[in-house]
Amino acid sequence: MSERSEDAWIAGAAQRFAPSADVVLGIGHDAAALRLAPDGVAVVAKDVLVDGVHFDLAACGGAAAARKSLAVNLSDLAAAASVPAGFLIGVVLPHPADRALFDALADGFEDASRAFRCPCLGGDTNVADGPLVLSVTVLGAPGPMGVVSRTGAQPGDVLSVTGPLGGSRSGRHLTFTPRLREAAVLARLGIPKAMMDLSDGLARDLPRLCRASGIGARIDADLLPVHADVRDSPDALEHALGDGEDFELLVAHAPLQDDIRTTLDEEGVSLHAIGAATDEGDLRLLQKDGTSAWPDGGWDHIGLR
Amino acid sequence: MSERSEDAWIAGAAQRFAPSADVVLGIGHDAAALRLAPDGVAVVAKDVLVDGVHFDLAACGGAAAARKSLAVNLSDLAAAASVPAGFLIGVVLPHPADRALFDALADGFEDASRAFRCPCLGGDTNVADGPLVLSVTVLGAPGPMGVVSRTGAQPGDVLSVTGPLGGSRSGRHLTFTPRLREAAVLARLGIPKAMMDLSDGLARDLPRLCRASGIGARIDADLLPVHADVRDSPDALEHALGDGEDFELLVAHAPLQDDIRTTLDEEGVSLHAIGAATDEGDLRLLQKDGTSAWPDGGWDHIGLR
Repeated sequence: MSERSEDAWIAGAAQRFAPSADVVLGIGHDAAALRLAPDGVAVVAKDVLVDGVHFDLAACGGAAAARKSLAVNLSDLAAAASVPAGFLIGVVLPHPADRALFDALADGFEDASRAFRCPCLGGDTNVADGPLVLSVTVLGAPGPMGVVSRTGAQPGDVLSVTGPLGGSRSGRHLTFTPRLREAAVLARLGIPKAMMDLSDGLARDLPRLCRASGIGARIDADLLPVHADVRDSPDALEHALGDGEDFELLVAHAPLQDDIRTTLDEEGVSLHAIGAATDEGDLRLLQKDGTSAWPDGGWDHIGLR
Repeated sequence: MSERSEDAWIAGAAQRFAPSADVVLGIGHDAAALRLAPDGVAVVAKDVLVDGVHFDLAACGGAAAARKSLAVNLSDLAAAASVPAGFLIGVVLPHPADRALFDALADGFEDASRAFRCPCLGGDTNVADGPLVLSVTVLGAPGPMGVVSRTGAQPGDVLSVTGPLGGSRSGRHLTFTPRLREAAVLARLGIPKAMMDLSDGLARDLPRLCRASGIGARIDADLLPVHADVRDSPDALEHALGDGEDFELLVAHAPLQDDIRTTLDEEGVSLHAIGAATDEGDLRLLQKDGTSAWPDGGWDHIGLR
């Protein structure tokens, strides 16, 4: 690989990304700059994905890995009910640097950038003796409700999810659509009091929302929408609770009025009620057999897989 | 490592970072949010550092590596004459996750956050079979000249650097102070027409500024300030041109008036003139022996070390 190849690779890749009116300074500078909404609040999210942990590069290829690395960050923006404005790419390529992999990543980022209408602002590429690392940062602006967070849920709120859970790792984790549109509709209607995206599984993520909001929760196992990928499994409930990477939104909200429900239907946005926020300070999973302990589990991405 | 250890580690680390008035939503949420200057322009930089490439973890320890990973990103903001507002941390820890390393990183980020007055907005930690990866993203707001970039230099401009070059890898690359203060003074005085930070060495970085601005350059070897670390080396000039990681600013500016020069002296900001921008479309290094070829080289962080 020649001395100047980094500049050449990056110059080539940079041409793929169309400039955007709000990008004041884009690819090819020390820093990037973009114009945000007039209230001057920037929303930012950063998730790091690693081959062997979040994707299997040999099986899925670089383009799918790149797409996922942007999509999971956009899912975080959706959780904040915010609107994407641009993203930066940080890549650590396995040594020796492979042009075909670099190009596949550029393909994936280009397609995802277009599909999700999120311009690329720049990036940084390195090579090291290790797995492929994709570190994307997305920037955005608050939506009509401002920045929605995990705090704000109150006892009595309904807890809902935007779609079925479980089995994502059999394939959907690479192809899911971040719930930006759903978040935009929910925010326009003033619905979410607290929100997060389900990346590590409801079993692990719901306690985080409860801690942040200072509430307990009671979830009805029969109400959990289980994805078709695992619905017929004898462990369907465990999959829905613990698999992770669903990237559906978990929403705390007041009971919905009929007209709001109608609007959501018209917009094609699903809110499956799965339980309620309580002031009891604990989490319970109500099952037909009468047990109610909250399952340990979910996805610990520092610890064991 | 227990199931819940990631949350516990991160909760512990999060407590180290004091909240800041401009941080609307900080550590512990899906996204972070911060209030920027009223013109609503966000400046963002993202450099990824890897053990064995940008630092030697076994030799320098986690705290120094963390400090460097924030400092190099702040150097990019300095290059844009912008003001830091906050940063996010992305970490890939080598498997198995080592609590002492995690704590050393938190120490380094905490100290650097305070030293550079840049609040931590959040982060993402993972573990993988590979080297330590530190992926920092900094956000900021434009300074008094807006976002200064590599474009804007014109023939006749003076080319200057803010400090001596060469030998950084013997130690300074871990301890340097990003030139934020210098950039702020330069911007307040309206000096920089184009600017960048010298991360890969003048030999490699100057051509980038020239390409971006559509200029040539003539550098006088005798004017190059060589750092004391390599001044006595027989290859002093090569070190100054090619070592990289100086993190001084390269500035294109009009010739300085005496009053401006006095103000810079009073502020303790050095601008060492090293040459001039030309309209000749090439780069020349003028040496005593009459040769004038621009040296190939500098630091290619994708290619050979």
